[in-house]
Amino acid sequence: MSSTYGSKIKISVFGESHGNGIGVVIDGLPAGAAIDRDAVLAQMARRAPGRDKTATPRKESDLPRVLSGMRGDILTGAPLCAVIENTNTRSQDYGNLLAMPRPAHSDYTAYVKYRGANDIRGGGHFSGRITAPLVFAGAVCRQLLERQGVRIAAHIERIGNICDARFDPVSVDPSLMQRLSASSFSLIDGMKEAPMRAEVEAAHTAQDSVGGVIECAVTGLPVGVGEPMFDGMEGAIAQAVFGVPAVKGIEFGAGFALAQMRGSQANDPFRYENGSVVTETNHCGGILGGISDGMPLIFRAAIKPTPSIAMPQKTVDLQTGENAVLEIRGRHDPCIVPRAVPVIEAAAAVAILNLM
Amino acid sequence: MSSTYGSKIKISVFGESHGNGIGVVIDGLPAGAAIDRDAVLAQMARRAPGRDKTATPRKESDLPRVLSGMRGDILTGAPLCAVIENTNTRSQDYGNLLAMPRPAHSDYTAYVKYRGANDIRGGGHFSGRITAPLVFAGAVCRQLLERQGVRIAAHIERIGNICDARFDPVSVDPSLMQRLSASSFSLIDGMKEAPMRAEVEAAHTAQDSVGGVIECAVTGLPVGVGEPMFDGMEGAIAQAVFGVPAVKGIEFGAGFALAQMRGSQANDPFRYENGSVVTETNHCGGILGGISDGMPLIFRAAIKPTPSIAMPQKTVDLQTGENAVLEIRGRHDPCIVPRAVPVIEAAAAVAILNLM
Amino acid sequence: MSSTYGSKIKISVFGESHGNGIGVVIDGLPAGAAIDRDAVLAQMARRAPGRDKTATPRKESDLPRVLSGMRGDILTGAPLCAVIENTNTRSQDYGNLLAMPRPAHSDYTAYVKYRGANDIRGGGHFSGRITAPLVFAGAVCRQLLERQGVRIAAHIERIGNICDARFDPVSVDPSLMQRLSASSFSLIDGMKEAPMRAEVEAAHTAQDSVGGVIECAVTGLPVGVGEPMFDGMEGAIAQAVFGVPAVKGIEFGAGFALAQMRGSQANDPFRYENGSVVTETNHCGGILGGISDGMPLIFRAAIKPTPSIAMPQKTVDLQTGENAVLEIRGRHDPCIVPRAVPVIEAAAAVAILNLM
Amino acid sequence: MSSTYGSKIKISVFGESHGNGIGVVIDGLPAGAAIDRDAVLAQMARRAPGRDKTATPRKESDLPRVLSGMRGDILTGAPLCAVIENTNTRSQDYGNLLAMPRPAHSDYTAYVKYRGANDIRGGGHFSGRITAPLVFAGAVCRQLLERQGVRIAAHIERIGNICDARFDPVSVDPSLMQRLSASSFSLIDGMKEAPMRAEVEAAHTAQDSVGGVIECAVTGLPVGVGEPMFDGMEGAIAQAVFGVPAVKGIEFGAGFALAQMRGSQANDPFRYENGSVVTETNHCGGILGGISDGMPLIFRAAIKPTPSIAMPQKTVDLQTGENAVLEIRGRHDPCIVPRAVPVIEAAAAVAILNLM
Repeated sequence: MSSTYGSKIKISVFGESHGNGIGVVIDGLPAGAAIDRDAVLAQMARRAPGRDKTATPRKESDLPRVLSGMRGDILTGAPLCAVIENTNTRSQDYGNLLAMPRPAHSDYTAYVKYRGANDIRGGGHFSGRITAPLVFAGAVCRQLLERQGVRIAAHIERIGNICDARFDPVSVDPSLMQRLSASSFSLIDGMKEAPMRAEVEAAHTAQDSVGGVIECAVTGLPVGVGEPMFDGMEGAIAQAVFGVPAVKGIEFGAGFALAQMRGSQANDPFRYENGSVVTETNHCGGILGGISDGMPLIFRAAIKPTPSIAMPQKTVDLQTGENAVLEIRGRHDPCIVPRAVPVIEAAAAVAILNLM
Repeated sequence: MSSTYGSKIKISVFGESHGNGIGVVIDGLPAGAAIDRDAVLAQMARRAPGRDKTATPRKESDLPRVLSGMRGDILTGAPLCAVIENTNTRSQDYGNLLAMPRPAHSDYTAYVKYRGANDIRGGGHFSGRITAPLVFAGAVCRQLLERQGVRIAAHIERIGNICDARFDPVSVDPSLMQRLSASSFSLIDGMKEAPMRAEVEAAHTAQDSVGGVIECAVTGLPVGVGEPMFDGMEGAIAQAVFGVPAVKGIEFGAGFALAQMRGSQANDPFRYENGSVVTETNHCGGILGGISDGMPLIFRAAIKPTPSIAMPQKTVDLQTGENAVLEIRGRHDPCIVPRAVPVIEAAAAVAILNLM
Repeated sequence: MSSTYGSKIKISVFGESHGNGIGVVIDGLPAGAAIDRDAVLAQMARRAPGRDKTATPRKESDLPRVLSGMRGDILTGAPLCAVIENTNTRSQDYGNLLAMPRPAHSDYTAYVKYRGANDIRGGGHFSGRITAPLVFAGAVCRQLLERQGVRIAAHIERIGNICDARFDPVSVDPSLMQRLSASSFSLIDGMKEAPMRAEVEAAHTAQDSVGGVIECAVTGLPVGVGEPMFDGMEGAIAQAVFGVPAVKGIEFGAGFALAQMRGSQANDPFRYENGSVVTETNHCGGILGGISDGMPLIFRAAIKPTPSIAMPQKTVDLQTGENAVLEIRGRHDPCIVPRAVPVIEAAAAVAILNLM
Repeated sequence: MSSTYGSKIKISVFGESHGNGIGVVIDGLPAGAAIDRDAVLAQMARRAPGRDKTATPRKESDLPRVLSGMRGDILTGAPLCAVIENTNTRSQDYGNLLAMPRPAHSDYTAYVKYRGANDIRGGGHFSGRITAPLVFAGAVCRQLLERQGVRIAAHIERIGNICDARFDPVSVDPSLMQRLSASSFSLIDGMKEAPMRAEVEAAHTAQDSVGGVIECAVTGLPVGVGEPMFDGMEGAIAQAVFGVPAVKGIEFGAGFALAQMRGSQANDPFRYENGSVVTETNHCGGILGGISDGMPLIFRAAIKPTPSIAMPQKTVDLQTGENAVLEIRGRHDPCIVPRAVPVIEAAAAVAILNLM
C-alpha cells in the first residue's frame, strides 16, 4: 500500500476505520511557525459526521492528539504526527461484508489485492474516515499558506440536480472565501441550501444516495508555482484530490467545456492592470503550462453518490461462489458532498504547499 | 523543473523545441524483453505532424535514436535513452514572442518562473513537441503490457460540437482497439470523420482553433492493480495525463455524470460470469478504491483548443510594460486532438506499467 | 526535516525525546503475513536502556502500541503505525542546554537550522531514543526476510581498544547468528565481554565515554538484489545505517583494507561448489556492482563515543555570545555500542527488505 | 535498474560502455545561471583515460554534447541532457567474458539479475566509463556551489602503502583546494607522487593492480545543511559516493578512528572566533546530527584495486558449468585512484547541491 504524498511536504496517512487509531505524519513543515489549534479543530469539525441532517449519525470525537513536531503551538521542524483514537465503532454491522463485497466500494478489489487479509470493517484503510487526518494535515498547511497570502475555499457546486452559483473566475471575493471555509454546508448562493437538502432527503427516503460536484478556488498564488509536465499544478492537485475516496473526475478552469470552445474564446487575453499582468478571462483556471499565472486557481471535482445504500443490491458471495443480494446496515450518509468540501480544500492545501 | 514520472518505471523527459534534441530516459524496464522497433515507430508516426490536413505542415523526421538500454532489439535492463534530433526549426518565427507572451501558452508563466532564461522558441520545454519522447516511452511500455494481456486504445470522443460514439464500458471489442491504436484519426464511428474534419477546417478558415475530448480504454488488467489514496489508479493516471500539454480535465467511468446520479444507479452490481466476478455496469470506470476491478478501465481527457491561432490577440508587451496585440506566425495545428490520441495512450501506458 | 526511508518499503519515523510519543509508519508491508509480536519485543528489549551496566539508568517501558496495519497478528496491507508513549522524562536536566550546545551533539546545528524552535530536550528528534521505532520497524522487516531465508546478525566488533573476533566472511554459522541476534551484549568471542565491560567502566569512572565498531552479516540473500550506481546495496545500506545517530563510517567486505591490497589479493575467485557459484574469499562483502552475489553480505559501522560525558566541556553560550563551560547532567550511557547492535541490524533489515 | 539520484537536483545517468552513447539528465538546475563549459571540460579531462602512465591507453574524445537545458552558456531551467558518443570501442576484447565472469566485477551478478540480457561488453552500464557523465553533472553542480562560496577538492590520500598528507580538518587552504581540483594526480604533498607512481608501476609490472583512498574536503558550507536521520549529510553523500564503482567504504571526520577514542577526545569543543561559532577540532567531519556545522566537511572513500588484472584468475564457465581460468585482455588501468578523484568530487558536488 502507499498512502503518502509529496516531496517537500510529505504526508503519510495511516489507519483503518475500526483499528486502534488513525493519523498522519507530516514531514517538512517549517520550524518556528505557530499553529492555531482551534482553527485546525474548526476544519475537522466541518468534516466530522453527525453535525447535520445530511450526515451519518455516528458521532466521533475526532480530536487529534499531536505526538510530535509541536512544542506548545510552535512547529519544531521535526515530523508532526497526529493521532485520532478510534472509538464508537460497531463492527458487528459489517459481519456479512466479509463474504459479500458492497457494490462501488473497495471491498472486492481490496479483498483480491490483499488476499483477504485487509481489515474490511468500515472499509478499513479505504474508509472515508481516514480523510480526517487529511483534513488535519490540510488545516496545518492552509495556515502556512495563509501567511503567504494564499487562500483556499470550496463550495458545493452541485448535489444531484441542484446547482449552486460558480466562483467568478477572475475575481474571487475574500469575504466569500472566509465564509465558505468556515461553513459546514458551503454554498455561494445560500438560497440553494433548502433545495439541496431536499434532494438529499429525497434520496434518503428512497433508501438511496446522491452525488455532486465540489468547486474549489485558490487565490493569492504568486506567478510561477508548479513545474512542467508531470509535476504541473494540474497533475499535482489531481493526485492529491483523487486521494479522496469517491472523487471520479477533476477539471481545471473551464475544463471539459473547453472541448466545445474555439481558441479565440478559450484563450485568456493578457492585460496590464495596475502594473500587474492579469488575464481578462480565466478559462485556464489560473494555470498555464502547469504553472500558476497569478489568477485564481479554480478546479471542480466530481463526487460519486455514497456507495452504501439501504436498499437491497446485487452482489456476489465470495465464499459460496454464487450471486447474492446484499442489504447494508450501519450508519451511512445519503450524501457525503457537504462533508467532502473541507477534505477537497485540505487536499488542495497539501498539494499547493508542497509545490511552493 | 521536473519532468520525471514514476517509481518502478521512471521516465525522465528532456528537450526543448528548438534545442539540439529531445528525448527520454526510461529506467526500470525488464532485461531480456524484445522490443518491436517498427511498432514503436508506428506509434510515433501517429503523433508526427504533417500527416493529415488537421495538422501543422512542419515535417519532422522524428526518428528516435536509442543510445542505451537496448542491444539489438533486446532490452538490457540498463536505462534506455532515446534521442530525437531537432531539425527543420524556423526560430525566426518566434521573434516577437520574446516580449509578448502568447495567450493560453506557458510563455508568461515560464518567463516569470525562469526569470527570462527559458528557451521560448517553439515553447521550449513546454512545446507539444516533447510529447514525441513520451509517445516513444509509451510505445515501449505498451508492448510490455500487451504481453501481459493489457491493451490500450483511445479515440477522438469529441471535436468541438461533433461527437464520436463511446466505448461500451463493460465490453470493449479487441478488434476495435487494434484498429483505433493503429489509426491517425481514431474514431469508433468512422462516419464522424467528415463532420469532425469540417469542424476543424471551419476553425482553420476562421484563423481559429478547436478543442475536444479523448476517451481511452484499457482492457485486460488483472484485479488488484493500484494502491489506496494518493497512489490509486485515478491519481496515477491523472498525473501522467496532465503531463500532456493542453489537457485540462480528466474523468473516470461516468465521471462528472455521477454527480447527477443516485447510488442505486451509479453502483455497479457484481455478478458471477463464467466463474469470474464482473460488474453489470461500469460507472466506476474499472476502478474501485483506486484499485482495478478487472473491468475495462475507461477515462476521458479534455483537450483545450490549440492556443496558437492566426487571428490577432490581446496580450502584453513585457518590455514596454504596455498592452499589445499579437499576431502569431509559424505553423500550428488548428486542432491537436487527433495527434494527441497516441499521446494520451502513451501516458496511460507509462502510468499503468508503473503500477503493475 | 525528513526522516523517511525507502521506496517499496517506506519508513517514516517521528517523535522527539520529550514529546508525547515517538513512533514509525511502515508502508508497503505484504498483506496476510503474520508477525510474532514477542519476537519484535525481544529486539526492542535489546535496545532498551537500563538492562545492562553499560547503559543509562533511565527505564523506558518502550512498549509499542500498534494503531493500524495489523489485525491480531496479521498484517492487513495498510500502513502499519506503531507508537511508543514517552514517560519517565526528566526535562529539567536539560535546562542549560537551551543556551549551551553540547559538543558533538546536534544541539548547535539543529538550533541554527530550526531557528531555535526545535525541541532540544533530550536531543529532541535527534535523540538516540528515536532508534526505538527503527528497531520496531527492523524487527518486523527481519521476520519477513527470515521467511525468505535471509538472516541478519551483528556483534560488537570493537569497544575502544578491545576487539572481538570477526565473522568468517565466506561462511557465517547460523547458530552463531541466532545467538548474536538474541543477545544484549553480542560477541562472537564471549571471552571478550569482561575486558570490554572493563573498558566501558574505565571510561565511566573517568567521567568519559568510549566508541566502537559494529560488524553486521546478512546471509541467505539470493544473487541479484540491488541496483546499479546510486541504488546499489552499499549506498542503500549506508543511507539507512547513517540514519542511526553516532555512526560516522561504514565499510563493506574488506573495506578500507582494500586500499592496501593488490587486485590479485582483493579479487574473490569464483568457483563451483555443489553446483552453485561461490567465491573462495569474500573481500567484496557479498556485493559486486552494487548487487548481491550470494555470499554473506558483511559490513562494519564506526560508532563514535557517546557525546554526553560528565566531565566539564568547552562550549559557547548562544545567549551571551561568550565562551562557556558546560557540565552535562542527566542519564547517559558511557558506551552505546552494545545497544546500537540491534539498531544496526534493524537498519540493515529495512534497507534489504526495501531492495528485495 | 535505477541510476537516478536526488530529489531537488535529480540526476539520471544512462549508457553502456559499448553502446551508442552515454550521458546524463540533470533536472532542477536554476534558470539563468551561466555555466563555464571550459571548466566543465577541464573536470572531465581529469577523469579521461590515457592522460597518464597510471591510466588505460584507450583514448576517448569524451566531449559531451548538450542536447537541452542550455541556450548558449545559460541554463534554461529545463532538464539538461548531455550525451557522450561512444567511439573507439574494441568489443572483441570481451568475447570470452560472456561465459566467464571476471572476479570482482559485476559480470556475474548482472548476468544473474538481468538473465543474461545485459550488455557485458566493457562492463556495460557498470563500466567505470559511465562515471564520465557523473563528472559532467558534478562539474555543473560545483560551479553553482562555488557561487555560494562552497568549494570541493579531493586528493589521493593513499595508493597501496604510500600515503599523502591529510587535510587540516579545521582549516583547509583555498589555494590548496584550487590546485588539487585542477590536477590530474592530486596530492597535498607533491613529494609523494614519485613513490605512488612507483607503487602503481610495480603492480602493473606484476600484471596486477592496486587500490587506495581518496580524501575529500568541502568548505564554505553554511551551518544547517542536511536533514535528520536518513537524509543526513553522511547518508546522502554516502549514497552518491557508493554510486561510484569500486568504492567499498566511506568515513566522515575521524571515522573509524573514533572507535578507539574517548568522548573527551572525540568531542569537538565549541568556541567563538571572530563572532562565529567554530570547533577547536573537527573529528565529526563538519557534520553533527546529519547537519553541517560550518566547519570543513571531510570524508574519505576506500577504492578497491582495479578488478581487471592481466594475470590468469580462477573463475567459472557459466556455459559449461565448470571451473575455469580467465585471462583478461583489453586495456585496463592498474590503478584507478587518480582518475577517481574528480569522480568523488563530482559525487560530493551533486549530493551537496541537492541538499542545499
